[in-house]
Amino acid sequence: MHEEKIVANKIKEGITAPKGFKGAGIHCGIKRSRKDLALIVSDTPATAAAVFTLNKVQAAPVIVSKKHLKKSETFKAIIVNSGNANACTGERGFEDAMTMTEETAAALCVCPQEIFVASTGVIGEPLPIEKIVSGIRQIVQQIDESNYISVAEAIMTTDTFVKSTSSTFMIDGKEVSIGGIAKGSGMIHPNMATMLGFITTDAAIEKKLFQSLLKRNVDKTFNRIVVDGDTSTNDMVIALANGASGLDPLQIGTASFDIFENKLHEVLKKLALDIIRDGEGATKLIEITVQGAPSDEDAVKAARTVALSPLVKTAIHGEDANWGRIIAAVGYSGIEFDPAKLEIIINGTHILRKNYIVTLPNAVANQTLQSSNIELLIKLNLNGGTATCWTCDFSEEYVKINGSYRS
Amino acid sequence: MHEEKIVANKIKEGITAPKGFKGAGIHCGIKRSRKDLALIVSDTPATAAAVFTLNKVQAAPVIVSKKHLKKSETFKAIIVNSGNANACTGERGFEDAMTMTEETAAALCVCPQEIFVASTGVIGEPLPIEKIVSGIRQIVQQIDESNYISVAEAIMTTDTFVKSTSSTFMIDGKEVSIGGIAKGSGMIHPNMATMLGFITTDAAIEKKLFQSLLKRNVDKTFNRIVVDGDTSTNDMVIALANGASGLDPLQIGTASFDIFENKLHEVLKKLALDIIRDGEGATKLIEITVQGAPSDEDAVKAARTVALSPLVKTAIHGEDANWGRIIAAVGYSGIEFDPAKLEIIINGTHILRKNYIVTLPNAVANQTLQSSNIELLIKLNLNGGTATCWTCDFSEEYVKINGSYRS
Repeated sequence: MHEEKIVANKIKEGITAPKGFKGAGIHCGIKRSRKDLALIVSDTPATAAAVFTLNKVQAAPVIVSKKHLKKSETFKAIIVNSGNANACTGERGFEDAMTMTEETAAALCVCPQEIFVASTGVIGEPLPIEKIVSGIRQIVQQIDESNYISVAEAIMTTDTFVKSTSSTFMIDGKEVSIGGIAKGSGMIHPNMATMLGFITTDAAIEKKLFQSLLKRNVDKTFNRIVVDGDTSTNDMVIALANGASGLDPLQIGTASFDIFENKLHEVLKKLALDIIRDGEGATKLIEITVQGAPSDEDAVKAARTVALSPLVKTAIHGEDANWGRIIAAVGYSGIEFDPAKLEIIINGTHILRKNYIVTLPNAVANQTLQSSNIELLIKLNLNGGTATCWTCDFSEEYVKINGSYRS
Repeated sequence: MHEEKIVANKIKEGITAPKGFKGAGIHCGIKRSRKDLALIVSDTPATAAAVFTLNKVQAAPVIVSKKHLKKSETFKAIIVNSGNANACTGERGFEDAMTMTEETAAALCVCPQEIFVASTGVIGEPLPIEKIVSGIRQIVQQIDESNYISVAEAIMTTDTFVKSTSSTFMIDGKEVSIGGIAKGSGMIHPNMATMLGFITTDAAIEKKLFQSLLKRNVDKTFNRIVVDGDTSTNDMVIALANGASGLDPLQIGTASFDIFENKLHEVLKKLALDIIRDGEGATKLIEITVQGAPSDEDAVKAARTVALSPLVKTAIHGEDANWGRIIAAVGYSGIEFDPAKLEIIINGTHILRKNYIVTLPNAVANQTLQSSNIELLIKLNLNGGTATCWTCDFSEEYVKINGSYRS
């Protein structure tokens, strides 16, 4: 009996950790042999929240999912294919994305607008829609609580490892879970890969409140990771909340809400950092915190500019504590600051003090970078604005991977 | 006699091609053995124009030269050191930059505010000012019309070749010349390299008009080249016009002015493209033109975003005509456009037609990139906004160079 319970616990992880969620991941024929179709289903109608790419070029599934988010109050499932982005595919692409939601809805006996659709993969090629339709008819038969890894595998493109996590905690005596999966944002040949994130929870939360909650926390996690600055046509994060925990709907301003937000933030951050860790050719995870900026907005600007600088990223790759490149990047970020007040601290060691004072020999400063986790703290000492973002180093491998021939 | 004339012509090239300019480049001891001090002198008082870095962190020589540009109506010389940027050096750096102008002024019997000063090299280390002062006392003895190559060599840091050009042409029966030298903007260890450009001409032009002329043409040349997007603390372009050609001062709206502007543009463009050709690890010069944008400003935005995209730059390096990456980069550039109207033409071949129509097999499309000069034309087909910018491809070599240890 005891053993059975452990097994029962074990099979409920990732996006099926929350009660009342099932999933499946199968191979339907878009890719040569790897899994390429994923389905996440809530037993009961769920509320939803979603954040979409800001790229002006938006793939058909982004447009369809956005429309469904607006039109419907409750949602049943998310259907995702990998291997083909269904982007820049014109009218036909739009029809195909609709077909995916219609087929899934029919099989689950709900309306198409209760289904979200997402795609990731090569751009500009039509979907092999017949294969996907017969795949959908298969996959709905296979959904189960134990399939959380298959679902995470089926949304991968260039990812080198599965990104799946969950968190189970108590609120008001009820067990509540949040589960999540993601795939990476690095782009690689022949795919134009995309950042996708899918979150499930058995908490209950009203749609509008859920939307502001998700947006705020995606802004501080998925939107604070910088691989190469290129934003895809297909990026999206979708969250479903089905209330199966039995907990009353979360209300803003309560301790329950704060606990939930904190746990959601952790899940999103874990997935976002996994994407950075899986950055093409990455050898170091770099956390960049800017403190003392004129405003939080300015702190984000400065941190993102440093995270995007190829010169900073290559220097850190070479384990060279080149503070000149860091200060110059802050300098062209567009924010106001006084360079003479700036301090730089790497993994707890003061590399640069105020008034450009350097007390460490280069060799000693460089030792602070001999780690696969780099915490770079930039203190502007002006005001209270603060922000953190994450990136990875820039290696020869990145160029090799991204410059290889399409074949 | 005839032979002598040819020799006489030959020794007047680069920044000494215009009449009444002399120069010298020597080793004064900042670098181990290569030339590190350059001086450009006009025989008679010249008017000047200058464009400076927009980085919030500005090196001492930038601040001093800016002040002199404002204070003085005529200028005598430009003193430049390489090997040390005199940036982030506090009060002492400011004094050192002043000392450089004072010593040069004293030796040439003019006021310090008639001297421009520029520095390029490692950041955050004080100048070896004694060596520079004795270098200045030497270099003023050596100025000559034949030294144009030495001057160009002495401003180099990581450049692999000398960037020097000149143009001689007739206006109103008078021979007029423009000369110029530059050094690259790629940053490399242990130097934080800088983009410097120095222009000489024997035309006469009033200060305010000269400033708007230089600014407009730098904006379309030096400010349209993108190596890695990092803007240095020391960038500047300075131009001197001494009127020694005997031509009347140039007046706006005249044919003479238009000829001069056209030739100035050519000189600036030649130097700017040399910087790109010398980009770290560059194997291809890429010209990106955006046509049919809502405005010229939007066209610049789109072209710059494409030029900055590591994914586009690595794809071109790999000779892969990946139009998806190009369209996605335009998509996140922040401008308004209709992706279905976008066309992409590479070296004269239509890679993407309207409505995402691709008529060429990938292998054939990729052949358009088998050249060291790539002309990428992006037609938005909306309005009349157009702009061109230049960049280079992104190779493994770039990362290797920029990630190497400081030693």
